[in-house]
Amino acid sequence: MKGLVYDGPGKIAYKEVPKPEIQKPTDAVVKIVKTTICGTDLGILHGKTPSVKPGTTLGHEGIGIIEEVGTGVSHFKKGDRVIISCITACGTCEYCKKQMYGHCKDGGWILGNLINGTQAEYVRIPHADNSLYAAPEGVDDEALVMLSDILPTGHEIGVINGCVKPGDTIAIVGAGPIGMSALLTAQFYSPAKIYMIDLDKNRLELAKKWGATDTINSGVEDAVKKIMAETADGVDVAIEAVGAPATFDICQNIIRPGGHIANIGVHGKSVDLKIQDLWIQNITITMGLVNTNTTPMLLKTVTSGKIQPEKLITHHFKLSEVMQAYEVFGNAAKEKALKIILTN
Amino acid sequence: MKGLVYDGPGKIAYKEVPKPEIQKPTDAVVKIVKTTICGTDLGILHGKTPSVKPGTTLGHEGIGIIEEVGTGVSHFKKGDRVIISCITACGTCEYCKKQMYGHCKDGGWILGNLINGTQAEYVRIPHADNSLYAAPEGVDDEALVMLSDILPTGHEIGVINGCVKPGDTIAIVGAGPIGMSALLTAQFYSPAKIYMIDLDKNRLELAKKWGATDTINSGVEDAVKKIMAETADGVDVAIEAVGAPATFDICQNIIRPGGHIANIGVHGKSVDLKIQDLWIQNITITMGLVNTNTTPMLLKTVTSGKIQPEKLITHHFKLSEVMQAYEVFGNAAKEKALKIILTN
Repeated sequence: MKGLVYDGPGKIAYKEVPKPEIQKPTDAVVKIVKTTICGTDLGILHGKTPSVKPGTTLGHEGIGIIEEVGTGVSHFKKGDRVIISCITACGTCEYCKKQMYGHCKDGGWILGNLINGTQAEYVRIPHADNSLYAAPEGVDDEALVMLSDILPTGHEIGVINGCVKPGDTIAIVGAGPIGMSALLTAQFYSPAKIYMIDLDKNRLELAKKWGATDTINSGVEDAVKKIMAETADGVDVAIEAVGAPATFDICQNIIRPGGHIANIGVHGKSVDLKIQDLWIQNITITMGLVNTNTTPMLLKTVTSGKIQPEKLITHHFKLSEVMQAYEVFGNAAKEKALKIILTN
Repeated sequence: MKGLVYDGPGKIAYKEVPKPEIQKPTDAVVKIVKTTICGTDLGILHGKTPSVKPGTTLGHEGIGIIEEVGTGVSHFKKGDRVIISCITACGTCEYCKKQMYGHCKDGGWILGNLINGTQAEYVRIPHADNSLYAAPEGVDDEALVMLSDILPTGHEIGVINGCVKPGDTIAIVGAGPIGMSALLTAQFYSPAKIYMIDLDKNRLELAKKWGATDTINSGVEDAVKKIMAETADGVDVAIEAVGAPATFDICQNIIRPGGHIANIGVHGKSVDLKIQDLWIQNITITMGLVNTNTTPMLLKTVTSGKIQPEKLITHHFKLSEVMQAYEVFGNAAKEKALKIILTN
């Protein structure tokens, strides 16, 4: 079979790789139906993720059909249509028992990182009973791919950690796929005002269409000045969805006393925390990897049509065109790309 | 009457000042019985708190006897013995209604900051009904002074914000009065292991006596290495009770996935937040000014003898000896000083 293999910083190739096999009784092998590319994959390509060794097949999102299950898998059988979670969970360790699946002692984010991932014709899923979700009948395949990672990440690490409440004024800094996921899921909790801040006009227009009440192009106007002028003391919740010192700084400059800064962005360097001003402000800062503990809940919101995450999909390719898809996703702003679907 | 007046950076004097009078119907004037000096007062003396203007009488802690009340005060009358809260609360603004009294729109921390404070023979207390607490009969006067600020600060900003739970492993960085308050109040919630970290041998010995299960002299051994070697993944809760980059850094280097860093320290400069390592760790960082919303609860623990905060008191002076008391408190480690009581 073929898969998209990381060959060291700057190098990827779609090439022949061994078809995965059951290694432990709790494994399943899944034939990929649809997968996608995450911003994290671009980080790996650029050599930012030393845990990923050359020779690893990338990808941690997708839906597929079960090809084979180990003798210890009880919830799934050959032929089942499943959503692959980006997080592998044993279900029995201390962290799993606290619903911190992202920190599972025998899992966590390992797909397309420590083990081969989903940008391939087949993938092996360890701890299949806890790491796959049955795909409901009649729901769009591509909507379900959004449940592998970006929807739970925006929801848990942005909206839930940020404690978005009815009536709140919130700001989302970064209108990429993750910022947009936070935008869609924040609306479950009825905030009064949602600022979306980005440098890209096209993404801000989409954000406005999808529920942002106010958009700020921070390349054109000073987001901090504008928000501080328009709100009483700043925002209740600031969601960082980029992963850079400048965007973290916007968050710490617009947060009101008692507010929450929820960091989703993956950072490559430290940030200057202005604790000399913030110590007295009774603020909370959170950060973390998705635990996917809200995936079952989000699945219900997608199944019922409460949200339509498939609208985040801008481009379609065949899996065999994955190299071209990486190029398009690598120039996301220019290509007006959000999520890209790869079909096997 | 006399009071301890801030006359600009480095300058204080105990001198004649006007006796305070009722200015608004919600005011009370209180005759000070006992007061104390806070680390924050030393910060003011060193010019670190620009909000304090020369000519201000310092101090935000104490107990006293009501001398006079305005016509709008309903809970107190002349002759009542009262605990003075360091936080003034109107009880009606948006922040007060969220129990964020520290951010009261017509109060907050104003005593000995924006208005004259408690290191004087008399003090005016605005919004007396919400800013004073009736002192229960039969409870040690000096124990009650600890309820003005340090006990609620250690409890709310350290222990409650840090979410200390039964069985937790926690670390308190800084064994000064605030760190000791966190130590005493953390034990309400039955953590399994309490590390106290400081540079001072005497304070560490006291901490051990008062409930720390483990002490680390960070001038002698590497606290981070020791804790990471002795715990599985670090501590559940790290309480910063100093207010310096080095002590904040210890906290971020010992926190386990899912853990809480609760900053109590008052910082004079920014800190380098290692978000490149922490983003994936699902940690929470909190910071803030005390709200005193747990003062009534803490008062019950003192009244019932559950804790004895008076053990934090190491020195006694007359109010008229306040200049000498500042010198002793300014050399706290050498003088083996924790809290100093000034009696009027």
